[in-house]
Amino acid sequence: MSLPPYATIVQDLPSTVPFVGPEAQERKRGRLFRARIGANESVFGPSPRAIEAMRQEAAEAWKYCDPENHDLKNALAAKHGVKPENIVMGEGIDGLFGYIVRLFVEPGVTVATSLGAYPTFNFHVAGYGGRLVTTPYVNDREDPDSLLALATKEKARLLFLANPDNPMGSWWDGAAIRALIAQLPSGTLLCLDEAYCEFAPAGTTPPIDVANPQVIRFRTFSKAYGMAGARIGYAIGQAGVIKSFDKIRNHFGVNRIAQAGALAALADETHLTWVLDQVAASRDRIAAIGRANGLQPLPSATNFVTMDCGRDGAYARKVLAELISRDVFVRMPGVAPLDRCIRVSAGTKADLDVFEATLPEALKAAQ
Amino acid sequence: MSLPPYATIVQDLPSTVPFVGPEAQERKRGRLFRARIGANESVFGPSPRAIEAMRQEAAEAWKYCDPENHDLKNALAAKHGVKPENIVMGEGIDGLFGYIVRLFVEPGVTVATSLGAYPTFNFHVAGYGGRLVTTPYVNDREDPDSLLALATKEKARLLFLANPDNPMGSWWDGAAIRALIAQLPSGTLLCLDEAYCEFAPAGTTPPIDVANPQVIRFRTFSKAYGMAGARIGYAIGQAGVIKSFDKIRNHFGVNRIAQAGALAALADETHLTWVLDQVAASRDRIAAIGRANGLQPLPSATNFVTMDCGRDGAYARKVLAELISRDVFVRMPGVAPLDRCIRVSAGTKADLDVFEATLPEALKAAQ
Repeated sequence: MSLPPYATIVQDLPSTVPFVGPEAQERKRGRLFRARIGANESVFGPSPRAIEAMRQEAAEAWKYCDPENHDLKNALAAKHGVKPENIVMGEGIDGLFGYIVRLFVEPGVTVATSLGAYPTFNFHVAGYGGRLVTTPYVNDREDPDSLLALATKEKARLLFLANPDNPMGSWWDGAAIRALIAQLPSGTLLCLDEAYCEFAPAGTTPPIDVANPQVIRFRTFSKAYGMAGARIGYAIGQAGVIKSFDKIRNHFGVNRIAQAGALAALADETHLTWVLDQVAASRDRIAAIGRANGLQPLPSATNFVTMDCGRDGAYARKVLAELISRDVFVRMPGVAPLDRCIRVSAGTKADLDVFEATLPEALKAAQ
Repeated sequence: MSLPPYATIVQDLPSTVPFVGPEAQERKRGRLFRARIGANESVFGPSPRAIEAMRQEAAEAWKYCDPENHDLKNALAAKHGVKPENIVMGEGIDGLFGYIVRLFVEPGVTVATSLGAYPTFNFHVAGYGGRLVTTPYVNDREDPDSLLALATKEKARLLFLANPDNPMGSWWDGAAIRALIAQLPSGTLLCLDEAYCEFAPAGTTPPIDVANPQVIRFRTFSKAYGMAGARIGYAIGQAGVIKSFDKIRNHFGVNRIAQAGALAALADETHLTWVLDQVAASRDRIAAIGRANGLQPLPSATNFVTMDCGRDGAYARKVLAELISRDVFVRMPGVAPLDRCIRVSAGTKADLDVFEATLPEALKAAQ
């Protein structure tokens, strides 16, 4: 009874997972979190109209989804001033990252990113046998100049940049991104992760130019739209690049309930505006709590605040552990020197009351 | 502005899609279907308890899912008498097929299946550069002996078998499958697709033996549980094989609402029994309608009836087109000689009333 060999690439992959979920931590701890402010979810929830649409669609769940995602792609195309053929829907940005990497990466192919940037993208690059090259953050921002130089030197097929960035919350204005795009070396595709763009100052996202095949932009309903658990995101790009997803994607993969919810969410600008206001106020309060306790909050264009604990990664990990042991779910950057920080997602008043009460104890215990 | 080259495998892939959805056909036709009985969906719907659980969970959609699918895997483990580490959840069986193929297939690897069997499995094999070898159905059944001989001769890493089968509705009893398993050549993994097993006669599925690494079994909530649009399925296998999915799967990919719905669906045996009764009665009526119109219904252990139109594929395709033009969504096998048939999914009374009224006209028009 012997198993066949695994594919060559798979044999070399580690068994690590990109993130451990809060539920797994709760099971291990034997106790629920009192504040769930670690995964940059939107505690302010989906639009009530999206919730209602999803509730309605639950009874229709016996039908497969529309694999062409027709209605939603049309709504998104209208919103972004592009055509439906410039949009592909996927099972969250994570699913789409898997697809874009699969389309372009194979053993021998190089991908450029920043050291400490989104781990799930790297998970997929490794998963398809790619070679990952990195350049450090500069002043807690991903550095377009260094990334450009790296991609050029290493002949990277894909260049990953998140704007705004996770885990640091930093960002560049649209002009800087446009300059990067203008200088992209031939044969490099920029994967521009804009998961947090709704939270950013006006002008952060450059205009969408679907004539340029070298840029593909990733958006999601998981953050500002509060639908992380529904698993729905999309990419915008040149029609030929977008069409290539059809060769490999799981055509019926975007569930029907998520499609209905996303369509309703898009139509509810009022809720989105309310969420952005709540997030802005929550960021201010997180920053104030941090400052009051001697932490240095970094500027943020996202729904979280990353705060410098003022010492090294070992210390920040202790602070994090002490928060978690006090039932506050937060996360932190994984790589030095970013890992001198903890990362706190926007929360409700109740969440932040818990955080405010807990942080001083956690810091004291971590000393 | 030049794009990087696509990965070698991708360059050679066709742009075809496995299935065109009924919504796309409705858009093209400019008219809705009156009977949606083509995709083997369960018109009898999810359990009311599953619907209620999904409705409740809609408001919680702001939270990412539990990537370990803990509660659901435990419930399924209890049901099947295995351990949670013998189960992996996925975005429907289609998603899991993508993963199992990715784990074992790369260029140079051979996969064995039946000519005319489930196209989405083949889509994934091609998508990872595998070589597909096939053997014909015998008497409208997949043929274990031929498959075994083929897998042995061709040194296939994966052997695909659906029991019961789609698109023919045929099946083998558990003893035949056990005999196949006992004779599997070393180095061949049997991918046993049991999507329709709940509809089959008792004894169709052999006992689950998770000690055997050479068998992995695929189950779904899309068919008997009526949750196709929720996108949730699972595989049962040896713990080491199951763990390997963690190297590549989209960890947060199974949406939260589907997990809640599936958990509730599992607990509602009453609904499942009712659905099976409805499906059995519906199959009988479809067969009777077919016979009354000169078609030969094949025996079925699924939620559909495949009916021999008595001539060649060109004729059956005409019958299908005439049904579709009369607003009846049905499908048919894609490959000769199976394509002499049309395939009609179990429907409500209203669905089958439409089918009964339409079939004579369609047959007349197809002459």
